Amino acid sequence: MARGYNVAVVGATGAVGKEMLKVLEQRNFPIRNLRALASERSEGKILEFAGESLKVERLTTSSFEGIEIALFSAGASVSREFSPIAAKRGAVVVDNSKAFRMDKNTPLVVPEVNPHALRSHKGIIANPNCSTIQLVVAINPIHQRVKVKKLVVSTYQAVSGTGKEAIRELTEQSKQLLSRQKITKKVYPHQIAFNLLPHIGDFLPNGYTEEEMKLVNETRKIMEDESIAITATCVRVPVFNSHSEAVTLETEEKISVEEVRKILSRAPGVIVEDSPGQEIYPLPIKAAGRDEVFVGRIREDLSSPNGINMWIVADNLRKGAALNAVQIAELLIEQALL
Amino acid sequence: MARGYNVAVVGATGAVGKEMLKVLEQRNFPIRNLRALASERSEGKILEFAGESLKVERLTTSSFEGIEIALFSAGASVSREFSPIAAKRGAVVVDNSKAFRMDKNTPLVVPEVNPHALRSHKGIIANPNCSTIQLVVAINPIHQRVKVKKLVVSTYQAVSGTGKEAIRELTEQSKQLLSRQKITKKVYPHQIAFNLLPHIGDFLPNGYTEEEMKLVNETRKIMEDESIAITATCVRVPVFNSHSEAVTLETEEKISVEEVRKILSRAPGVIVEDSPGQEIYPLPIKAAGRDEVFVGRIREDLSSPNGINMWIVADNLRKGAALNAVQIAELLIEQALL
Repeated sequence: MARGYNVAVVGATGAVGKEMLKVLEQRNFPIRNLRALASERSEGKILEFAGESLKVERLTTSSFEGIEIALFSAGASVSREFSPIAAKRGAVVVDNSKAFRMDKNTPLVVPEVNPHALRSHKGIIANPNCSTIQLVVAINPIHQRVKVKKLVVSTYQAVSGTGKEAIRELTEQSKQLLSRQKITKKVYPHQIAFNLLPHIGDFLPNGYTEEEMKLVNETRKIMEDESIAITATCVRVPVFNSHSEAVTLETEEKISVEEVRKILSRAPGVIVEDSPGQEIYPLPIKAAGRDEVFVGRIREDLSSPNGINMWIVADNLRKGAALNAVQIAELLIEQALL
Repeated sequence: MARGYNVAVVGATGAVGKEMLKVLEQRNFPIRNLRALASERSEGKILEFAGESLKVERLTTSSFEGIEIALFSAGASVSREFSPIAAKRGAVVVDNSKAFRMDKNTPLVVPEVNPHALRSHKGIIANPNCSTIQLVVAINPIHQRVKVKKLVVSTYQAVSGTGKEAIRELTEQSKQLLSRQKITKKVYPHQIAFNLLPHIGDFLPNGYTEEEMKLVNETRKIMEDESIAITATCVRVPVFNSHSEAVTLETEEKISVEEVRKILSRAPGVIVEDSPGQEIYPLPIKAAGRDEVFVGRIREDLSSPNGINMWIVADNLRKGAALNAVQIAELLIEQALL
């Protein structure tokens, strides 16, 4: 029997943290001891893991004694403070915040795309942003074949990406509007129910949002090609779970729709759902709870000689966050990189 | 006092038909007699117009006796059958269906863009598709200045574009899901509440939907430039009203974000809402009920030397349908083209 590891989940009561626990359990991750860490507010809460109860402990500088793998999903400031502490105590950190993603000494890893980057880790590995992960899983197999030169991405992102309060806000506002009551707003600056917000993350001086620039910068880092031209528009939509992306890509050499379909049907972590005549194409409600990245609506870009359009959907809490982090931890074990 | 005209609205009980009546009333359109026409199913229904009741009559071949202006919004097959009859009886038809849009003898008109095309009409003028109208209103002023070479469009389209049954379906399914009941489906092939459908109109052999090809073909016809390269992905979103579009455009000459903003702030029918630092950008719920096309998120396309990104939102029932049709009728009167 494989040995078990001492694992900590930081931010265990959040939307991603809970999904991390679920994924660890579902994948029978080899655990000896599991520690659920969170802020003071959640201290003492009882979570369930593999049929047993798991008491949430408060995150402190001494939380990482004996921990070998620490999965962080508690925001960038918590990561900046506690990841280095955990790493110093000997844990390998897989960090789901933006804190270290663009740091050149920190690998940014999607196991299907750049598993080799793990080898250079110095105690912290960054987990990419949700919208980036599903994009590179679907694009990289094509890039390996005909080099992707350019990407235009429009996203349709679920509220679960913001967190559990946002899920509640969409639920509450929807109920309020359907019963003709005034809406209450806490999380988003504008109504999200039956509306769209072209605004995810803070605005930067170049007019892009942080989320849009994450897509640009993280994609280049993971695909290890700074020459890929990328632009993005990120939009929050009134969907509970799963992000969708309308993507137009331009390749160096011409590639046919049939060849793209063939490459993607063999690509790890990808499921091609592309029988529009039978009304089969990726849908957020169908991708929710699933591990794969779903790709459909594959067709020529009529505006470009070497262009392909596609529609990419994945569960943003699973492959877009928790699952990718756990897959990184599995790889660390497999490649003896702990 | 201006003389009044005998006006018929065909499809008067539909989502667009009702909006046509509302727009005629709000704009004090010079009406002598108004006839509300619909299918047998709606015969005898009472609508309201300018404080008076208006009885819905059944559409027959003799409905157009004495009619000078006929606004059609009852689907392509009704238009194909009855528009030529109305035109033969001397009415000028403004047709909101797809029936005649790409017919080379029928002008396809957006008053802000190609009013001159009206002059060649032969009794029928086509009103463009909703997603095309808002696009060309926002793009043409830039095209006039630096020629738009290429457009990549991702749409986020409201259910009202499908009709009143779709509005009901989104309402019902949302209520059902929020109270954990099974959903009922009638209009869309998949759940629309809290979901997205990358599927508007029938699928064509090239993998595009009809809606996507309307955007491509109608835009070129209205802007009178077959050389513009266009690709589109059209997605239905759980929003009641107003279509949104994430647009990336490439121009022949470089144009700055500031210049685009200046051009669009002076453009007819456009309102620039672009102060992201103050969380001001176009929103479907704010555009609903308004006449203008709202443009924001204007910024450089980082993937292209001559590229601009923008976010375009408009009420699809008003500027996207009813208002544009009534504006065409107003122009016909103004230019004595009846």
